[in-house]
Amino acid sequence: MNQLNKTTQLKQLLQGPELGFAMEAHNGLSAKIAEEAGFRAIWGSGLSISAALGVRDNNEASWTQVVEVAELMSDATTVPILLDADTGYGNFNNVRRLVHKLEQRDVAGMCIEDKLFPKTNSFLRGEQQPLADVAEFAGKIKAAKDSQQDPDFCVVARVEALIAGWGMDEALRRAAAYHEAGADAILMHSKQSTPDQILEFLREWSGRCPVVIVPTMYHQTPTELFEQAGANLVIWANHLLRSSVAAMQETAATIWRDRSLHHVEDRVVPVKEIFRLQGDDELKTAEERYLPSTQ
Amino acid sequence: MNQLNKTTQLKQLLQGPELGFAMEAHNGLSAKIAEEAGFRAIWGSGLSISAALGVRDNNEASWTQVVEVAELMSDATTVPILLDADTGYGNFNNVRRLVHKLEQRDVAGMCIEDKLFPKTNSFLRGEQQPLADVAEFAGKIKAAKDSQQDPDFCVVARVEALIAGWGMDEALRRAAAYHEAGADAILMHSKQSTPDQILEFLREWSGRCPVVIVPTMYHQTPTELFEQAGANLVIWANHLLRSSVAAMQETAATIWRDRSLHHVEDRVVPVKEIFRLQGDDELKTAEERYLPSTQ
Amino acid sequence: MNQLNKTTQLKQLLQGPELGFAMEAHNGLSAKIAEEAGFRAIWGSGLSISAALGVRDNNEASWTQVVEVAELMSDATTVPILLDADTGYGNFNNVRRLVHKLEQRDVAGMCIEDKLFPKTNSFLRGEQQPLADVAEFAGKIKAAKDSQQDPDFCVVARVEALIAGWGMDEALRRAAAYHEAGADAILMHSKQSTPDQILEFLREWSGRCPVVIVPTMYHQTPTELFEQAGANLVIWANHLLRSSVAAMQETAATIWRDRSLHHVEDRVVPVKEIFRLQGDDELKTAEERYLPSTQ
Amino acid sequence: MNQLNKTTQLKQLLQGPELGFAMEAHNGLSAKIAEEAGFRAIWGSGLSISAALGVRDNNEASWTQVVEVAELMSDATTVPILLDADTGYGNFNNVRRLVHKLEQRDVAGMCIEDKLFPKTNSFLRGEQQPLADVAEFAGKIKAAKDSQQDPDFCVVARVEALIAGWGMDEALRRAAAYHEAGADAILMHSKQSTPDQILEFLREWSGRCPVVIVPTMYHQTPTELFEQAGANLVIWANHLLRSSVAAMQETAATIWRDRSLHHVEDRVVPVKEIFRLQGDDELKTAEERYLPSTQ
Repeated sequence: MNQLNKTTQLKQLLQGPELGFAMEAHNGLSAKIAEEAGFRAIWGSGLSISAALGVRDNNEASWTQVVEVAELMSDATTVPILLDADTGYGNFNNVRRLVHKLEQRDVAGMCIEDKLFPKTNSFLRGEQQPLADVAEFAGKIKAAKDSQQDPDFCVVARVEALIAGWGMDEALRRAAAYHEAGADAILMHSKQSTPDQILEFLREWSGRCPVVIVPTMYHQTPTELFEQAGANLVIWANHLLRSSVAAMQETAATIWRDRSLHHVEDRVVPVKEIFRLQGDDELKTAEERYLPSTQ
Repeated sequence: MNQLNKTTQLKQLLQGPELGFAMEAHNGLSAKIAEEAGFRAIWGSGLSISAALGVRDNNEASWTQVVEVAELMSDATTVPILLDADTGYGNFNNVRRLVHKLEQRDVAGMCIEDKLFPKTNSFLRGEQQPLADVAEFAGKIKAAKDSQQDPDFCVVARVEALIAGWGMDEALRRAAAYHEAGADAILMHSKQSTPDQILEFLREWSGRCPVVIVPTMYHQTPTELFEQAGANLVIWANHLLRSSVAAMQETAATIWRDRSLHHVEDRVVPVKEIFRLQGDDELKTAEERYLPSTQ
Repeated sequence: MNQLNKTTQLKQLLQGPELGFAMEAHNGLSAKIAEEAGFRAIWGSGLSISAALGVRDNNEASWTQVVEVAELMSDATTVPILLDADTGYGNFNNVRRLVHKLEQRDVAGMCIEDKLFPKTNSFLRGEQQPLADVAEFAGKIKAAKDSQQDPDFCVVARVEALIAGWGMDEALRRAAAYHEAGADAILMHSKQSTPDQILEFLREWSGRCPVVIVPTMYHQTPTELFEQAGANLVIWANHLLRSSVAAMQETAATIWRDRSLHHVEDRVVPVKEIFRLQGDDELKTAEERYLPSTQ
Repeated sequence: MNQLNKTTQLKQLLQGPELGFAMEAHNGLSAKIAEEAGFRAIWGSGLSISAALGVRDNNEASWTQVVEVAELMSDATTVPILLDADTGYGNFNNVRRLVHKLEQRDVAGMCIEDKLFPKTNSFLRGEQQPLADVAEFAGKIKAAKDSQQDPDFCVVARVEALIAGWGMDEALRRAAAYHEAGADAILMHSKQSTPDQILEFLREWSGRCPVVIVPTMYHQTPTELFEQAGANLVIWANHLLRSSVAAMQETAATIWRDRSLHHVEDRVVPVKEIFRLQGDDELKTAEERYLPSTQ
């Protein structure tokens, strides 16, 4: 277990010399699985969290419902959570409140994006999405940075200009404004299947502050390319959720068809693995210490 | 979509002539997957819900946190949710409040078990677990039945006597008391790997009221045996969760090792399948109807 | 106790021949006090609810936090709650979800206002507040009405045109648009200390649909004037909260000064009055019925 | 504003040479009123919190609902909150989780009582209430103290032996056991209208650790008597709530009778006092700093 604060871990990952990786998770269980696999940061994806809850990625879940998921994710892990906080769920004042609530719950950082509330997922109807006013969004970032109590809490500013078809100049202009407003990193999002936009941005940006990328659409690009181009953090944005859906759909279909567990027992983990993930061992030890009735 | 109330759907499934099946789910997403596979009822498993949240199956989540999960599960589906409500989270008065909250949220029924609060999972330290006083637990069932407003809301009484090693006579005595107190069905639990206990119970019980079984440990028994023996509902208790863990562990390990999505893209569902599960189509249509800005 | 559905009670109050009155409440306790005083409807004030929680009236509380307050208010009473739902907490889609959640919790109606999210209280910086686009707000009302399942759930549209200084023509234009979109009533808000604006609106509006008024600022006007002018419902918008603050400030100051309860005992209700308000009698009876241990 | 951590403030108040006073509050607003009156600690009363929510003091509110109230109270104030956490809402493990959640939310301490879950208020049916096993309750205290991360977080052990009629020897035996288990203070509760029990306890206890008292029933005793007898903290346990009920009942009755605000305007605080209590001034300043649109 890393003994540094989670905020410091995240800041070091963003600022460190090596390319870092954050794995998507959407609840306490998937967060723990991500940590156990080796990941040193977890992406609390807005898409995944909403999908797991059973709602749409359009701020159908309230911001306190999202914060509660992030809290459970943080409780279940020792590596930092970077929460995808959409637009910040309102204006600069909502963002200040959000930062306070996240810090209390030991969530190491948040990413906010320059879209309008309520949001629509970036991969849906993207061309129609107007973006936030640059000055207004910069105000949010400033308010966030001014209100955090832990100096290492990270605010990542996500630029949607490329997604919304406004071009590289606008993307650079926004990145610069958000950087100047105090953002700890810029997340440049793209939905092209080639890495050209991202590579161009990295070249133009030239390391002014850490850059985070999300190769969901351009996943065929070798990671080394981004590493050499100077990206700092890669987010694998929704793959635990998407693999869980594939598995659950197959399991459900099989059990329904067979009216039996016969064909699924060998592709599910044992019940005792669930208990292990839940930390039953620690409880058993504690029961011996604190419960007179088990003597 | 079934046009009956969810409570009525569940009651008919319990009382109908054919063996019914309920698939475990632990959040809105897995509930929807269970429904889409064909299942006509969903088991809101206490183990799975707690594990997904990232806490232990020892009432670490508060009862309102569990109710919120159940609400999201019910919102995401059109088939009934039978919630595993542990011991009812307190005494008869807590149970009355729980019934009221579940009915409001369109959760079709709840299962309560004759253990003590806070609970320990039945497959852990089972021999040490004292059971609830029969009269006290029967009082809970009575209170639940007296307080429900929808006559079809289902209260399933789970008997832990076999699990705790108290023998068949005690199991039958408890089942009879709970049936008399108004339980709509008896869930007889067993942790043996053979079906002997369950078959003996079904024989002795002789159809006095519907019987629910959970073949997690005795999964090798052909389902037909229980069908012929007169069971009414089989719960596949935790297999969506367990298959999702297997998939997520493999996915996380692969991405960590490869630093790339290369080997996982073909075993995850596409992003657009997530959007479909979230119901984006309905929203798109609604946007056209209600949003002037998209004209 | 009124045996009609709460939604029907509210609809009848809005549409009935007599002037109705709704008393502000901000939690379960104040709601019960309002009902016991005789009021047949309760106004779940956004200002009061936020103030009681300890936050500002700027959507600092999430919408689910507000819904939880409304749920507790509804649980504690048998008369309808009309919830001040600010702007609806987002766009038409958030409004649809809100309606669903309120109906589940037996909240009889909601009032939404044509301001922007996050809101600012109408009595603060009012002149600076831009209003919602009329068509967009009408779309919210339509979406709300289309999504409600109980035909009597009430959607009240609050017009902020007078407050924001846009004049009577704009107020009338908006009222007409919201009425046409399906609003069950129009709440016309004014912050003048005279009733002129409201009386003029009532005259011009001429009973096209029920009108709700909030005489917080023009409280010196005799109620008969509004009655004769054809108003349907008067909301006493925040007076339980404001009287509780006066009392608590005085009590706290007295106890702090005296280091004793000597001077406050005669201006507080007895502890047993708190128990009565909580419904302890019903529980005592229920304990006798359901708890074997109290025999 | 006191610059010490809230936990340290509370610990110093408990251990300091002077008699301290904690004022009951039940939400963010009443907590702020208590602080503004001068109180250096706030008692988050279980009775008051449940009554304000509109539920009974029988653990009808879930523990997370109570924690959310405590969080809002702490957010609204700069002095420490001592939360009345009933029995700890379960066993030692629930208590550990509770401590973690309270520390995150900057609640300075909690008081747990040696009753059984779900609790009944001490002033109701007291003679019938069995108490917790001493060793089991001491285990809870140990678990709480071992799990806290801030060394100054305070765990107060409330002894119900006198209330339940078990006599002074039992009260002393329990106080000693809880002190030994690590409790930071003993709250000795009595429902007699004379101070004899409490004075006797203080004499026998002889300052082994800080003692907290609650003069709800013996309120006629001059505070100096307890000061001289060595009590450390006096809790005024429910008087803000009880004064607010008196005021709200009178206000509601008056408005209902008058159909007018005429007779209540001079006994309610102005609306702008509500805005002040909510901290609108701070927001106005922040808007100037962070909102480009208000320039």
